[in-house]
Amino acid sequence: MTLQLFELVGTDTERPFSPYCWRTRMALAHMELDAGSIPWRFTEKGAIAPHGSEKVPVLLHGEKPVVDSWVIANYLEDTFPDRPSLFGGMGGRATGKLINAWGDIAVVGGIFPLIVADIPAHLDAVDAEYFRKSREARLGRKLEDVAAERDKAVTGFRRSLEPMRQTLKAQPYLGGVAPNYADYIVFGGFQWARAVSPFKLLEESDPIYAWREKLLDAFGGLARKSAGFAV
Amino acid sequence: MTLQLFELVGTDTERPFSPYCWRTRMALAHMELDAGSIPWRFTEKGAIAPHGSEKVPVLLHGEKPVVDSWVIANYLEDTFPDRPSLFGGMGGRATGKLINAWGDIAVVGGIFPLIVADIPAHLDAVDAEYFRKSREARLGRKLEDVAAERDKAVTGFRRSLEPMRQTLKAQPYLGGVAPNYADYIVFGGFQWARAVSPFKLLEESDPIYAWREKLLDAFGGLARKSAGFAV
Repeated sequence: MTLQLFELVGTDTERPFSPYCWRTRMALAHMELDAGSIPWRFTEKGAIAPHGSEKVPVLLHGEKPVVDSWVIANYLEDTFPDRPSLFGGMGGRATGKLINAWGDIAVVGGIFPLIVADIPAHLDAVDAEYFRKSREARLGRKLEDVAAERDKAVTGFRRSLEPMRQTLKAQPYLGGVAPNYADYIVFGGFQWARAVSPFKLLEESDPIYAWREKLLDAFGGLARKSAGFAV
Repeated sequence: MTLQLFELVGTDTERPFSPYCWRTRMALAHMELDAGSIPWRFTEKGAIAPHGSEKVPVLLHGEKPVVDSWVIANYLEDTFPDRPSLFGGMGGRATGKLINAWGDIAVVGGIFPLIVADIPAHLDAVDAEYFRKSREARLGRKLEDVAAERDKAVTGFRRSLEPMRQTLKAQPYLGGVAPNYADYIVFGGFQWARAVSPFKLLEESDPIYAWREKLLDAFGGLARKSAGFAV
């Protein structure tokens, strides 16, 4: 059965930019699974509604839809047990849930105000309007006002990554000697930023910078080859 | 070979209060390993120096010293492979390192200013002086000045636990359906607070409160039976 992944794009279909879709895309590569890409835009709700979702990633396995990046990772792990494991056992899967939540809050949530104002330029008019309206409602302010503070806000973001920094001083990847889904959880956030924003999130001297470089090169440079800014 | 654990105490030897020693104590119970306790106080550096450490926990396995709570957890997992696993596989062990760092920074580091001023009352004069001097140097201010802000500071601490809160809405323990070392990493911080401080860290309605209650009851009430404040 074929695998197909709905991936968030804007005007450039070679620039998928959802942090959650990137978690799934890296997980598929880790498991050496081919999956076609179905470009999807913010306002194309009708394309995924029949699959029971309002958001991407949505993975189609044959005709079966699997919704939500965490659910997809678990589905892949269960469905393809002979492939390289995403979690390295039940313990890694269970505690991966906390890392997933930390990735959502500290990483995706931390990057969001730093890059949000750069996103509309990658969208066509209808998606840009949807994006601006929904995100400004969430933020309670203009995207540009949020962006105006980012040179200062990035300091807090970098500090919030300290648990990861300490980990990478002790081992090359969050997954240990090789990357696993814990790495892709966090990397998805950085790849989202790279796709849409020239803003510099990390200092070159940061161990997280070197870790990101290695993941950009993983799987034949899958992430580095995708359209983005070299930051 | 016998196991013996140096555990931080003050004037009351029935009130061990190091967050890191509690990680180890819970790990030993999880693995159904008996270990004697060697009470140790802050200024008794001479008692552990021969074992190559300035801090506790120090675990003695026969005559072999094992130093640092994370190293001890790994040592126990490797040395007693037939016992209930702390990590549930290599993936859980690898990603446990990030949870350990998060526990150090967000949990122990977050609780520290909220309870630090309550600790000297549990120490004899020489330890109290050592504690106050070293901690005030670290904080750059008086313990009492830090404590004066705690009713406000606790809000930020509670918010910083959001990744854990989200996880516990999806599964009963960080380790999944049963607790594992990820839980003990975090629980150690709460048990430290419980031992020395009447300050209320969690609202009863918080899923983390219910989780803590279950861990207080684990292993025949090991943690609840230890001297502490019912908060």
